Amino acid sequence: MLVVRVGINGYGTIGKRVAHAVFLQDDMELIGVVKKTPDYAAFQAQRAGIGIYVIKDDDIKKFEEKGIEVKGTLNDLLSKVDVIVDATPGGTGAKYRDLYVSKGVKAIFQGGEKPNVAERSFSTLCNYEEALNKNSLRVVSCNTTGLLRLICTLHKTFGVESVRAVIVRRAADPKEIKRGPINAIVLNPPTIPSHHGEDVKEVLPWLDIITAAVVVPTTLMHVHNVMLKLSKTVTREDIISVLEESPRIILVSSEATGIRSTAEIIEAAREVRKRGDVPELVVFEDSITTRGNELMLFQAIHQESIVIPENIDAIRAVTGLAPTAEATISITDSSLGLKAPLW
Amino acid sequence: MLVVRVGINGYGTIGKRVAHAVFLQDDMELIGVVKKTPDYAAFQAQRAGIGIYVIKDDDIKKFEEKGIEVKGTLNDLLSKVDVIVDATPGGTGAKYRDLYVSKGVKAIFQGGEKPNVAERSFSTLCNYEEALNKNSLRVVSCNTTGLLRLICTLHKTFGVESVRAVIVRRAADPKEIKRGPINAIVLNPPTIPSHHGEDVKEVLPWLDIITAAVVVPTTLMHVHNVMLKLSKTVTREDIISVLEESPRIILVSSEATGIRSTAEIIEAAREVRKRGDVPELVVFEDSITTRGNELMLFQAIHQESIVIPENIDAIRAVTGLAPTAEATISITDSSLGLKAPLW
Repeated sequence: MLVVRVGINGYGTIGKRVAHAVFLQDDMELIGVVKKTPDYAAFQAQRAGIGIYVIKDDDIKKFEEKGIEVKGTLNDLLSKVDVIVDATPGGTGAKYRDLYVSKGVKAIFQGGEKPNVAERSFSTLCNYEEALNKNSLRVVSCNTTGLLRLICTLHKTFGVESVRAVIVRRAADPKEIKRGPINAIVLNPPTIPSHHGEDVKEVLPWLDIITAAVVVPTTLMHVHNVMLKLSKTVTREDIISVLEESPRIILVSSEATGIRSTAEIIEAAREVRKRGDVPELVVFEDSITTRGNELMLFQAIHQESIVIPENIDAIRAVTGLAPTAEATISITDSSLGLKAPLW
Repeated sequence: MLVVRVGINGYGTIGKRVAHAVFLQDDMELIGVVKKTPDYAAFQAQRAGIGIYVIKDDDIKKFEEKGIEVKGTLNDLLSKVDVIVDATPGGTGAKYRDLYVSKGVKAIFQGGEKPNVAERSFSTLCNYEEALNKNSLRVVSCNTTGLLRLICTLHKTFGVESVRAVIVRRAADPKEIKRGPINAIVLNPPTIPSHHGEDVKEVLPWLDIITAAVVVPTTLMHVHNVMLKLSKTVTREDIISVLEESPRIILVSSEATGIRSTAEIIEAAREVRKRGDVPELVVFEDSITTRGNELMLFQAIHQESIVIPENIDAIRAVTGLAPTAEATISITDSSLGLKAPLW
């Protein structure tokens, strides 16, 4: 069996999760991760047996002084891998692009980069086949991934003509201590559209979509209100049965479970999922409302983990490890335990 | 000049503001307010020279023990007034309805009551003339008032065919210490539609409107994303010029002022408005976006004060003090300083 060697540049919210997910794939080997600071996450990586690399030679000493063994620099890591997953802070990945190219390493970037950082913006359920054997891909951001999973799933069965979505964003990730707001609803941006709809169009250029976004003082998940015009008249039962069968989407009935907020989803996940992660798109079943060909619903997005399956698929796409979306989804989702019951 | 005698049952968020607003009207006399607890707000009312009444005889002693002079009970107040403004907690007003009727006093209820509490649900810019000389009115809630001000203003010039709105609600008022959430986005309710659109239809029964709502951890203002289909093609300049000229609506340009959140609106208001109140509907000018006959925008609603002008107008409507919406708006708005510059 072909095994692809993977490196990860960055070990924050996304990097640590991609590392763990790569570790669970039989067709991938995690060579190491690049860490910038010798902090608690570096100790955890070392204890987990993950090879730790640093940006430049100068950094080695400050890691070793803390008792963290360094395997080399980013350059050393790039010479040992087939694919690098760039999980550096938004906008930073672009600065490394030329280095990745010069080393002949295929690169997966995150949605915090501009679309032109890579050959293609990527979302498994929408355009896996177009991404095959590219040299670089950009996994779209968490909100865009959530929108695309819904839109591409519905489009296959019903046709999607237009989308209007309001995005209520969490202000910070749970680990962050310097971001706000504390007590405000912030327009993000104060103009319409927000970039999310534009980013959806990087993957589905034909779609009539407008999004608007606000930021609110919470850390757990984003919530979207999505209104879609479909190509045919539908019932809520039609929608429910398609979403139930779709990979990477779970339905939560508020009436059946008592779950009506992001806090309750995460509380359920903390019992049964590592870190309380919910990489699936969560659609609130009781909110699904239809009127002719108009569909409205609420969905929630766990911003820390939703893009992890797509990062794994992106590695398979650029290396040709799996020929179809179905093939990679089957491996990724069973290895990550997606759609395992939350209660 | 005819002077209408007004009593207020309740001295919380709404009651204290209506009291102050009534005090500013030349055609109204504030006879007194009913207070349930001898707390800081009771001391403030006494110092402001407002007559304090209690629910029942038993309560008098606990007020007097604290040095608060009591003028009588609710029954006594009702025998001295032409109009009672019920500003009791949501759902409580209905319990007093029969008492108000039996005393022959006209009653103004708040939007926390069910529509059938009064003869008519009321919003000045939409249905003042229909409310004239009714025995009871229900001033619709803060969110509904905000939606109606926008819809009725636009309808007059452009025709409004349908409305889809997402309401991001503040979780608690600034004074509240027992409400949440602290860190969650809560669907409110987990089904669509929310009651707000239904409440709009109490005033505009012909309108195609669907609303959905979430609650977020903030105290300052609600924010709405509103999408409207108009009867004609419009430009953003058309919309801006109509809203600029409308009473009770102010435009905030984020680009010009740097204001892009509820916190910044309230911070500006704290400098120049009593309590930092903003009874106007605040439309974010830079968010106004048109596409053919489709209009999208963000608006913010100061939940503590937006219904105060409508309460004053409702008093004029039931007593016939002003024959038209224009007449009462002119008096109310100049007395309350509406549309005075915020910066």
